[in-house]
Amino acid sequence: KKKPHFFSTLFFHIPKNCEHDMKNLIHSFKVGFALLLVSLVYILDPLFEQVGKNALWAIMTVEVIFEFFAGATLSKGLLRGIGTLLGGGLACLASNLARDLGKIGYSIFVGGLIFIFGAMATYCRFIPSIHRRYDYGVTIFILSFNLVTASSLRGQQVMELAYQRLSAVAMGFSVCIFISLLIYPMWATDELHRFTSFKFKELATCIEECVDGYLVVGEKESHPIIHVSSCKSVLDSKSTDESLVNFARWEPSHGRFWCCNPWEKHQQITDLLRELASNVLSLQGCLKSTFQPSTMMREAIKEPCKTVGLTIGLIMRELGEIIMKKKMGNVETVMVPELQSIKLKLIGLSTSNLGAIESVE
Amino acid sequence: KKKPHFFSTLFFHIPKNCEHDMKNLIHSFKVGFALLLVSLVYILDPLFEQVGKNALWAIMTVEVIFEFFAGATLSKGLLRGIGTLLGGGLACLASNLARDLGKIGYSIFVGGLIFIFGAMATYCRFIPSIHRRYDYGVTIFILSFNLVTASSLRGQQVMELAYQRLSAVAMGFSVCIFISLLIYPMWATDELHRFTSFKFKELATCIEECVDGYLVVGEKESHPIIHVSSCKSVLDSKSTDESLVNFARWEPSHGRFWCCNPWEKHQQITDLLRELASNVLSLQGCLKSTFQPSTMMREAIKEPCKTVGLTIGLIMRELGEIIMKKKMGNVETVMVPELQSIKLKLIGLSTSNLGAIESVE
Repeated sequence: KKKPHFFSTLFFHIPKNCEHDMKNLIHSFKVGFALLLVSLVYILDPLFEQVGKNALWAIMTVEVIFEFFAGATLSKGLLRGIGTLLGGGLACLASNLARDLGKIGYSIFVGGLIFIFGAMATYCRFIPSIHRRYDYGVTIFILSFNLVTASSLRGQQVMELAYQRLSAVAMGFSVCIFISLLIYPMWATDELHRFTSFKFKELATCIEECVDGYLVVGEKESHPIIHVSSCKSVLDSKSTDESLVNFARWEPSHGRFWCCNPWEKHQQITDLLRELASNVLSLQGCLKSTFQPSTMMREAIKEPCKTVGLTIGLIMRELGEIIMKKKMGNVETVMVPELQSIKLKLIGLSTSNLGAIESVE
Repeated sequence: KKKPHFFSTLFFHIPKNCEHDMKNLIHSFKVGFALLLVSLVYILDPLFEQVGKNALWAIMTVEVIFEFFAGATLSKGLLRGIGTLLGGGLACLASNLARDLGKIGYSIFVGGLIFIFGAMATYCRFIPSIHRRYDYGVTIFILSFNLVTASSLRGQQVMELAYQRLSAVAMGFSVCIFISLLIYPMWATDELHRFTSFKFKELATCIEECVDGYLVVGEKESHPIIHVSSCKSVLDSKSTDESLVNFARWEPSHGRFWCCNPWEKHQQITDLLRELASNVLSLQGCLKSTFQPSTMMREAIKEPCKTVGLTIGLIMRELGEIIMKKKMGNVETVMVPELQSIKLKLIGLSTSNLGAIESVE
């Protein structure tokens, strides 16, 4: 396989997947605009006189926290703010406590604090619940703590330093939030629903292809057309799902969504979808097996098989539509049991039906 | 499910998984030590006189690039260095080119550059090959470019600023590399092999449990004991695998490993393992089905079934051992075809054997 050239990737990447790329393009312009806006503190004289060199922190904040989804930007920004506040506050407290230690004593005290807090915070980052949701906040906490404590050694006004840094972060944060939430916002919530609905439809197609494939397999010159890749992409979607849910949790209510969206249920659905995909993948594997029932046998069960395939496909597409139209109320009562029953049907199809057919022969 | 309390998580987390936690603890101490070492530029007078306030960048570099695996630290450090170099260099060039534009013209020029480069770099981050491996470098590039260009507006010596920032990053990077590679290094390469080997063994156990479960299912009071969770964790390991391979690529050769480790082959193996896991999961699903063959039938095929289960388990464990002992030469010739044949065997087991049994009855 020849690797694509960098520039050909860059230029021919654009027309491939238009809608998605349009979103990427809009996001890119939004980031450019946010950077321009925050750079105004350097460009305009009255702003620079007020903020001074701390404007650096504002630019850094925008560059680091501006993410594709509004929820991601919001979470990173809030975590950065809280981390800076806690880290800076603790550093101020520590430097005030140890003010009378003398130069050498104070140096040893600061060194010890930096080591202990650095090690403790790093260990905290390994705890799964913290790692999943607050990792960035802990990094910023320890960074702020170290910078403010170390600066206090050099006679700088730590309270002022911490305050200036915090206000610069707040400035960058406001620019990000303003642009991310108000100009063509990309909601992780919407993407999560679109993606889940898409997976339902992909699996529906896969199941229908499987049933069709089963009915023609073994016939001469017939190669069942099955798109394994879409099944595999559903199987591999766990990390995407998790990060989308993670971002969606931070998003304010908008459109049809309410604050208390049942995200746990959403994860249950995507877990079941992945389980279903693994079953469909096994079915597809069965079609490649050298042990296949005879044409006569297949003819005998053609009709029920087709009905099962079509019904499952229909239900899956319907469920995909329900999710897309964001009728979230139906999820608990209709979708989870329905998915479970589809799973049982498929398992039944993959074992007992085949067995029954063989015994018919 | 009751959510665990923060402190109970923190304190009871430690004894659960000792070996792994020992590594986390060592890593935490290494980070604390690295932060202490780089803070010495603030603490020791002769060092501070040389470096001045740019020491801030050194502390930031250590905090941001020090990762668990040596390869991750190396890649982040190198990308940060290259990003700073390119971004700073380009900003110097731009500010030299536009020196004669006058204050207002120069401000507009800088604003335009910040917008265009910000948008272009952000768009580049969406290209999959760049996103996967160079994302961090692009972020740092645009950050350095903006900071240096914006500072140039305020009459600061941009060449000097870029140089100082680069040297501070280099200082932080050397501290990280020194501690990460020389003191109890955590190699992603080792972890990748350990993890793959572990997956082989887990799947071996699952397959054996499935076969045993099949032979007792339906018998009164017998509930086949099958650990679905280990199968599911293999299925969900794609993102872990990808990031481990990504880090392992950056690691220098050490121990039995050579620079040209066949990482593509490794990804093929883990892809096949996930496919196998999905098949095993389907088998486990079959055991829960209400359609089950009679005890008599199962007795008839008890012996061949047991043999198949044991053989597959044996081969899988052997393959896991081979990977653990890092005899990488065998991968191409023995492992991939062997895995393929195991897959075919399992598919055969899940369809034709069952069919054959039914027809026996």
